[in-house]
Order: sequence, then structure tokens, then C-alpha cells
Amino acid sequence: MPDSGTAPIDFYFDFSSPYGYLMAEKIDAVAARYGRKVKWHPILLGVIFQASGARPPADGISSKGKYMLADFHRSARYMGIPYNPPSRFPLPTQNAARAYYWLHGQDCGLARQFAHAIYRALFVDDLDISSPDTVLEIAAKLGVDRDALTAALQSPEMKNRLREEVDQALKAGVFGSPHVIVDGEAFFGADRLPQIEKWLETGGF
Amino acid sequence: MPDSGTAPIDFYFDFSSPYGYLMAEKIDAVAARYGRKVKWHPILLGVIFQASGARPPADGISSKGKYMLADFHRSARYMGIPYNPPSRFPLPTQNAARAYYWLHGQDCGLARQFAHAIYRALFVDDLDISSPDTVLEIAAKLGVDRDALTAALQSPEMKNRLREEVDQALKAGVFGSPHVIVDGEAFFGADRLPQIEKWLETGGF
Repeated sequence: MPDSGTAPIDFYFDFSSPYGYLMAEKIDAVAARYGRKVKWHPILLGVIFQASGARPPADGISSKGKYMLADFHRSARYMGIPYNPPSRFPLPTQNAARAYYWLHGQDCGLARQFAHAIYRALFVDDLDISSPDTVLEIAAKLGVDRDALTAALQSPEMKNRLREEVDQALKAGVFGSPHVIVDGEAFFGADRLPQIEKWLETGGF
Repeated sequence: MPDSGTAPIDFYFDFSSPYGYLMAEKIDAVAARYGRKVKWHPILLGVIFQASGARPPADGISSKGKYMLADFHRSARYMGIPYNPPSRFPLPTQNAARAYYWLHGQDCGLARQFAHAIYRALFVDDLDISSPDTVLEIAAKLGVDRDALTAALQSPEMKNRLREEVDQALKAGVFGSPHVIVDGEAFFGADRLPQIEKWLETGGF
């Protein structure tokens, strides 16, 4: 087991999570300032909510739901991150997540580029990232072989891999997105980024 | 109607809300830096949750509930505010809220001191602020007449006043605590304090 203070940071997120996107745009740079790497774990919030009894926070109808739609946008402006409210929200993300894990098995840098491209496709360019075609298109632009990825998206191996990742996230206590774990300490929400930074700086406070 | 940019900031909170306490310790000073006053509105979250269909976020049992208990404490440390996890939580706060409105009718500065004293009694000294005796004791230390306050806590006027304040909060879209409204813009959670400050500084971003 790595020493406390040098192990990778775990970053759990769903590709349809606006706050996950905000965290994704910042977490690697924050970690790097303290010599730390980040392990990204795309998961499926629908499964997490069902297993944990939690409910999706942003229904868009209740006072809280309407507030959250506005807060996604305002928080993005506050953090200096481009954001256009997507017309499809929330939406299923298993194709994007399976593609991520398949790419990660071959080239982790490429998988990271792909994750950023998927998030920006949804939250900047308003593309339907639930569609396999969109996922293939985004990957192809990064030089990924379409036929190989098409096969991977349907393979039992990648379906199992994603299922195992979601199970592992539940075991780690993940209940939402983004959920970041630093040396056993959990931080939920993009708004916990300043606390994560202070934790990394001081080793706990 | 006051001009935008000079009207008081509305601060809605429940006396049993840990994040409400954290906001209460900071909001007046932040507002004052931009020449703004804050109007405090103690409300009853139980009524708000029932009316809005929301659920109390911190059950202490689920992964999320356990996380929140830890996050209350860590957020207090992060903000430099003393915090001892209360042994009674959550607890009813109608006596404290009625006392607040009664005191406010007489001396708004005294009401503010009382609100701080109630919050610190719960979140620093672990006192049972649901009890009328504790509320009377805390008020008496600030020079308030016990008999007059005892009568006020049971008066139809103060019961109505609190009911009206909660109704008004619901109409204003309040769904939790703390909930701060600056010139029509809502901010939910103690973690939105930096956004509130930037909003006050820039007039919106």
C-alpha cells in the first residue's frame, strides 16, 4: 500500500453530472500542485442512487431543482469554466463510461483526453453523448479505431468492467458526483475543491 | 422598492442547521464589507421539507448521511469556526425562533445577539435548545425578562408570526438552510459564501 500523502486521489463521477464536469476541469491541476496523480472513475449515478436510496438532486421542477439548474451555470462562471445548459439532461452514460475504461486499458493519457472531450461535448456543445454514434465520433477525432471501439462497447468484458467499477464505488461509500477521496477522506461536490486543496497542502485539517 | 445593490440581504436558516450556523458566523461581516445589511429569518426546516417534498439531508445512517456529519465538522474547521457535534440532532427549534421574532420586535441588535447565543449553545456547548427553559436561560443572560418571554413563547401572536415567516420563505423559494437571497439571486449552503461575496463585489457574474 502506498504511503499516505503519495497515493493517487480517486475521482468518481458520472458523465452527465454538471458538478462532475466542473471538478474534471480542475482536479488534475490541483492535485499536480501537490505532486499527486488522480485516478478517474466514471460511474453510473442511476445505479448509485438506486442502491443508496438517494434521489437525483436536480428535477428541474421543485424549488430546489430549479435552483440547481441555475447553480450549475453560476458555479461554472464562478470557476471560469465554459458551460451551456444541455438540452438533454440527465442522460444515460454507459457508452461513454465503457469507452473510457476500454481506452484506459490501452493508453491512460488518451482516456483522459476522451473524458474531457465527452464532458465538453455535453456541457459546451450540447451533443447527445448517450448515443454510441456520438461517443464513436468523439473517440475517432482522437485517433481511436471505430470498429474496435464499436466492438468494445458491446463486449461482455466492458459491461462487466463498468458494473465492477460501480460496485467498487458503492463499497467506497460513493453516493453522488463528483466524489473525491484523498487518503481515505471523502469530499462530495465541486464546491469542496478549496477544501481538497487545503487538505493536500496541510495533510488534513 | 429599494434600488438593487442597497437592499438588505435575506438570510433564511433553521436554528438546528449546522451549515446555517456556519453561515450565521460569517454573513454579517461579508455583507458589511459591501455596505449591506442582513435580515435574518429563522424558519422551521421540518415544515419547509414537508411542503417542498424535500428530505432532511443528514440521516446519519446512509453513506451520504454519515458523510454530512463529518462534513459539518470539517467545514467548520475549514472556516475557522468552533464546532462540537451536538448530541441532539436534529431537534425542534420553534421556541428559539419565536423568541427571536419577539426580541426583534423590541431590539434588533439584541435579537442578533440572541441568535448567535442560541447557535453557539447548540453547536459549541451542546445544550438542548429545543427546551423552553434553555431558550429562557440564554435570553436571561442577555438581560431579557423571563416572564415576558415565557408569555411570548406561548402567545398566539408569536406562533402566527413564525407561521407567516415560514410561509413567506416557501413563497420566496426557500428549500433548505442556509438560504441567502441577494437582490433576487438565491444562494443555498454555507459553501456558497465565496460566490455571495463575489456577487456583492461585482453586482453579479
